Parts: sequence; C-alpha cells; structure tokens
Amino acid sequence: VTMIVETLAVGTELLLGQIVNTNAADIGERLAEAGMTHLHQTVVGDNLGRMVDAITLAISRSDALIITGGIGPTADDVTREAICAATGRTMAYSDEYAEDLRVRWERRGREMPASNLRQAEYPEGGELIANPKGSAPGVFLDHEDTMIFALPGVPAEMLPMIDTEVLPRLRAGVGDQGALVSRVIRTFGESESAVGELLSDIFEGSTNPTVAFLASSSEIKIRLTAHAVDEQAARALIAPVEAIVVERLGHRIFGYDEDTIERGLATRLLERGWTIGTAESATAGSISNRLTSQPGSSAWFRGGVVAYHEDIKVGLLGVSPLTIDEFGVVSEPVAIEMAVGARVTLGVDVAVSVTGSAGPDPLGQEVGTMIIGVATPDDARARTARWPGDRERIRTYTTTAALHMVRLAMDGVWWERS
Amino acid sequence: VTMIVETLAVGTELLLGQIVNTNAADIGERLAEAGMTHLHQTVVGDNLGRMVDAITLAISRSDALIITGGIGPTADDVTREAICAATGRTMAYSDEYAEDLRVRWERRGREMPASNLRQAEYPEGGELIANPKGSAPGVFLDHEDTMIFALPGVPAEMLPMIDTEVLPRLRAGVGDQGALVSRVIRTFGESESAVGELLSDIFEGSTNPTVAFLASSSEIKIRLTAHAVDEQAARALIAPVEAIVVERLGHRIFGYDEDTIERGLATRLLERGWTIGTAESATAGSISNRLTSQPGSSAWFRGGVVAYHEDIKVGLLGVSPLTIDEFGVVSEPVAIEMAVGARVTLGVDVAVSVTGSAGPDPLGQEVGTMIIGVATPDDARARTARWPGDRERIRTYTTTAALHMVRLAMDGVWWERS
Repeated sequence: VTMIVETLAVGTELLLGQIVNTNAADIGERLAEAGMTHLHQTVVGDNLGRMVDAITLAISRSDALIITGGIGPTADDVTREAICAATGRTMAYSDEYAEDLRVRWERRGREMPASNLRQAEYPEGGELIANPKGSAPGVFLDHEDTMIFALPGVPAEMLPMIDTEVLPRLRAGVGDQGALVSRVIRTFGESESAVGELLSDIFEGSTNPTVAFLASSSEIKIRLTAHAVDEQAARALIAPVEAIVVERLGHRIFGYDEDTIERGLATRLLERGWTIGTAESATAGSISNRLTSQPGSSAWFRGGVVAYHEDIKVGLLGVSPLTIDEFGVVSEPVAIEMAVGARVTLGVDVAVSVTGSAGPDPLGQEVGTMIIGVATPDDARARTARWPGDRERIRTYTTTAALHMVRLAMDGVWWERS
Repeated sequence: VTMIVETLAVGTELLLGQIVNTNAADIGERLAEAGMTHLHQTVVGDNLGRMVDAITLAISRSDALIITGGIGPTADDVTREAICAATGRTMAYSDEYAEDLRVRWERRGREMPASNLRQAEYPEGGELIANPKGSAPGVFLDHEDTMIFALPGVPAEMLPMIDTEVLPRLRAGVGDQGALVSRVIRTFGESESAVGELLSDIFEGSTNPTVAFLASSSEIKIRLTAHAVDEQAARALIAPVEAIVVERLGHRIFGYDEDTIERGLATRLLERGWTIGTAESATAGSISNRLTSQPGSSAWFRGGVVAYHEDIKVGLLGVSPLTIDEFGVVSEPVAIEMAVGARVTLGVDVAVSVTGSAGPDPLGQEVGTMIIGVATPDDARARTARWPGDRERIRTYTTTAALHMVRLAMDGVWWERS
C-alpha cells in the first residue's frame, strides 16, 4: 500500500540557482522512509500560469502533491491562487485565523499590515494546517483523487509540517492509521559492505522493520524502520532486531539516532573527569576543531599542538630526533611519542596524535597514509590507516577515526581496522 | 534575445533524497548569467516511460532542454533511449568513438567491458560531445525547434561541458556568436550593503557589463559580466569598470575569480620567504586547518598551539597571568601576547592569534566577541570583532578575518572593520 506522491517547489530563486533545492531531497527521504513512491519533482518560478500547469499535470498523474513555497503574504506568493485555478475552486477565508493573526500582532504592540490577511485564505473545500514554527499556515485540499498540500518554502518551517501534517494524511490515505518509527544505529570503522555482510542474514526478507544502510562521510548508519498500530508497537518490533545488531557490531557502534562520535566522547570524558589534548600534524587542528564544536568543551578540552614541522614535534612534544631518523616522521613510533609528549606538555589525561601524509608530499609513505596515536595514563598505542580520496576527505576520515580510537581506548579497547 | 531553457535531472537517488540536486542550481546560475530564461526544472527517476514523457513535454514548451544523468554504461542508464523514443529517432553508433574507447582501455592493459560500447551510441541526426573530465561523452541533438543536450550527472564532469559545449550552442541559437566573459572581484571586511553603496553610482543603469553582488559565508563577491563580439572585446568592456571598483575598494579586495584568501596569503608568504604559525583559543585549530588546506603548505606553515585552557596560554605561549587578571582572557592585550608568544614558541616570522567567546560561556565578554592578534617582526596589534550567528558561523567568520588581517599586516596595513 503506497501512494504516488510528487513535489513541486515554487520560487524563481531556485531557477536562478541562488538557492539549492534541499527541500526536495529532505521530503524525498521522508517519503521513502514512509513507503511512499516519489516519481516526479518539479520547480517553477513565482508565475501563476506555470504553477497552474504544474498543478494540473500533477493532479492527472499523482495521488498527492506537496507544494513548497509561495504561501507568504507578498504579492508574488500565488500558490493559493494557483491551486484554486487548477482545481476550479473559489477562495475561502478563515475569519478565525484572521482574528488569531490580529491578536498576535496586537500583543506585540504593532499594527498588522493588511497583506498578512492573505494568509487566512484557502481554496474552498480545503483547510488551513498548522505551522508550529512560523506565521504562515499551510493549506490542505483533498481534490477528487489527489491530496494537495501547500507548505512554506523555509526548511525549518516546512520539515516539521511534513512529519505532523503531511505524512499522517498520506498514511491515512492508504488506509493506514498506524505509526512509523525509525531507529538509527551509528557505526564507524567498517565499510558499508562489511557491515552489510555481518548483518545480511537478519535482514534477508525482513520487511518490518525494514533496514537501510547509509554511508555518510566516514560512518555507516543502519536505519531500522518499523510500522505498527502505534508507536509503542513499532518500537516493540524494532527492539529484538536492534538487540541482534548491537550484539553483532559491538564496539563498532558509537551511538544512536542523533548521536555523534564527539558527543559520545564528551560524555565519557565528563563521566570520568578526564581532560583531553591533541597533537596533530597532517590533520592540522581538525581534531581540536571537532572536539570543541561541542558547547561546554572547555570542561574537558585543554588544548593542542599543531606540530606540522618536525621542529615543533621535537621542541614542543618531546619527540626524539632519533625516533624520526630511524622510523621516519610518518611512523607509529613517532605517533606514540607525540601522544605521550602531548599528555605532558598539555597536562591532560588522554592525548591523541596524528602524523601522516595527506599529499602531495608523501613524506616517505604512500599519500593517504595516516597514523593515529593515543596515550592514556595506562598505555599508548598507534594504528596505521590508508584512506582513499582527496586531502579534505582524508582529513575528515582521519579525524573521525581518531575520535573513535580515543573513545575505545578509554574503555581499554584498541581499535583495529578490519 | 533569449532562449527558454529547461533542465531535467535523471536519477532515482535524487527522488529518494540520497543526494541533493545541486546541478540544477549550478546550471541555473550559468543560464541566468548568459541571459537565458530558465522556466522549468524537473527530476525523474531512471525510468524510460517517465523520461520520455518529461522530454516530450519539454520539447512542446522550451527552446532547449539540458538533461543530466543516465548516460553511463549500465543498464539503468537510458537517457539516450528516451531521447530516441521522444523524438522518433533510431539509435546511431560512432565507430570512431568506439575505437577510441578500445584504444584507451588497451593502453591501461585491461579488457573493456562490452557494456562501455553503449557510450558510442547517440540519437540519429545528433552527435557526441566531448567530456574533458570523464569517459562518458555527452549527446547533442537539434530536434525541430528544440536543442536537446544530455550530460553526465557528476557535477565535476557536467559543469565544464555547460561552459564549453552547451552555452556556445545556446548563444548561437539566438543568433549570438559573441562571447560572454565574467570577472569576479573578491572582497572581505564589509557588508554587502556597504560594498553596494561604495559602488552604486558605477552600476546605475549599467547593462554591459552587468554587476551582481554575491555574499557567500563571510566574503562579498562582485561579479562583472560583459557580452561582446569576442572574448577580447568583452574583457575590454570589463577593464575600465574593474579599474574603478579596484580603486574604490582598495585593500578590501583579496583576490579575483577563483582566488581564496588562503591562497593569496600563501603566495605572499612564499614570495617573502616567511613562515607562519597560529595561537588559537576560540577557533581551536580552524586557522591552521584553513592554512594547511593548501597543498605545499609545509613550505611556510610550521605549526600552532590550540590554547583553549588558560594554562596553555600561559605555559606554552608565555601570556602573563597578570595581563589575564587585568584585562580578562578575551581581551586585546591577551591576543597580542598570544601572537607575540607564538612567534617565539613556534619560531615563525608572523603569528596570528584568536581569543574569544563563541558561547555558551561568555568569558566576561558578549558571546560572539572575537579578538584577533597578529605579530610580525615589526609590530603586533589586535582587533575586536563581534559576529552574529551560531558557534560554527562565528568560527568561520573569525578564521577568514584572521587570514585577511595577516595578509594586510604583511603589507603594513592594519585592518579595521568599518
């Protein structure tokens, strides 16, 4: 049971390339997760005639149409008019909403511009739908065999309305009054295919929950999506499958849903009362940057040394010139001495180091070779990784791997890339 | 003289929201600049029937159609077939291109999969067009009153083909054999409205060159676009206007066209034979990161200290605890001592420092207060800036401002935000 849904984004600025249509992708992702079929996605400018044509075409071929943009108070916002014209309806007016709007402006002590009252209009037979994050309400119209939604173009207002107003109506439209629940399990350190193989037998033929593997920069997410009469029942379908996934993937998992590696690490540092510092060569501050992207990081992050030149590794981190001579600057012994030195120089409990070659100069190693060191009060070790891709990508991978390695080392687990 | 152009992106992954359709925005921007009229932009999946419908509709209403995606060698790449079906043409085959392809694979010592030969196909009456950045050629077909282009979906391959293959044919289509040339002047340190005011009289009513102001993260670009019989003539139209802009904006300009602040700074450091180092608190490695994003940065970047905690500022950079007590840690005297200390600790010619409050902890200053210090062999100064926005945005602004301030200080100019 699915619905053919299409999306129509309205806005001349999209056609001029002044903004990118991220709304289409965000809506597409949610539709896919809800099991809906998204076959067409169109953009037209703020032009009544072309909007009417696009809506008419959508009505002829789709079960639902989601329009974004063109519902504000200004003269070029003509989505409401276009829906009326395409469906042969007159414009209705919500006295109730108009009164609400007046009261809201009064409370702010300001007089409402008359143009705002356009937001009380909707196609006859339809209804206004709530916009919890903004002032312009959306519009819903069930026209013959097509549901038509008009939502604001601003993503922060539009996306919540997809979840609260659009998807429930689409699901009801296919006779489904149930709930759809997703759980994301976030892993690092394996390829998508390796994760897939570890879990393949669980998901063979599994339709509820469904599973999706999502690779994003350097992590693999496993998304379980279940569908049931209510949220509790959907969670009950996910729980046993999640338990198996967690058992199989073990320490490869760094978090769930909106967790990030850095947030997980921050929590662990706070719990243990530890401080952390960095000694970065090839990543040149990326690890410090990621760590301090967490508000409140000054509670556990003390600082770092960006040791790009050999002199800095020796002078500030106490790396021995003999070690560099014997093993080369991109080597596990140097990474270990950098991390051990950083613990002392920065006065921290745990330190993480990186030495590597992000290119173009190979520094005696293949370009893309990155060595991560971690020193705790008990131990210090290093791991070598080779990443594909350009400079920027190699840095991102290495930074994520370094944070992952610290998190594991704090639990006494020393990460091995399989 | 313009053409009605529409774009059609092919790819189920776009409808599923797995990737965002940046191609549409990039093509839209170039079309606008070339004076073409972009009225519709559509996405369909890798489905022959829906592609044929979309192409048929485009032929009925547009002078040109640019299709991206679906021209690779795999079975779901059916753009060529869809064009044939929509225009009632048979498929032709380029023996010449097929031979080229065979030779290329032979040179790599590998046998070519037979499926690759599909790339030698094109709709009868059309032609293959060159793809300088990839192996799949594009397709061009002049069908009755509509020009049809099929390009790869990969942006790095597609965009150069817009400039070299598509735009010249579109301009020829409106009887324009002339050239369109753009020059971008890149500035930092002023708001878009301030730059606009400084230049308003120049551009009042100017249609050739036209001017566009583009604000992107923390810089303002001024784009001059001229149109003339050939490239030289177009450049001659731009030159006098550019000269006035350069005179008015002076040191606010850090580069032209594809220049970045960091690249300009790198050139200056190399010319002068100077090394640079950083002392970062609130930006926590962002400046080191941006500097070392330049290949070859090890020639002039030695390293940095991420001095998040006060102890590190004092211990590694030699900031006086008395200065911190007297002025607070987020203060110009501390920024200056950090920069001066970094010159010594890191053994560099010029050092740049940042101390500030990116929130949530105000550290005795309003959140968003960022102080940048620069120390050269001759002088050391600091500047205070207050940026709006979230943590991430404040960091980006501050990093850009810091690089800008170093570049100016090397010329003996001390930046003041107006």
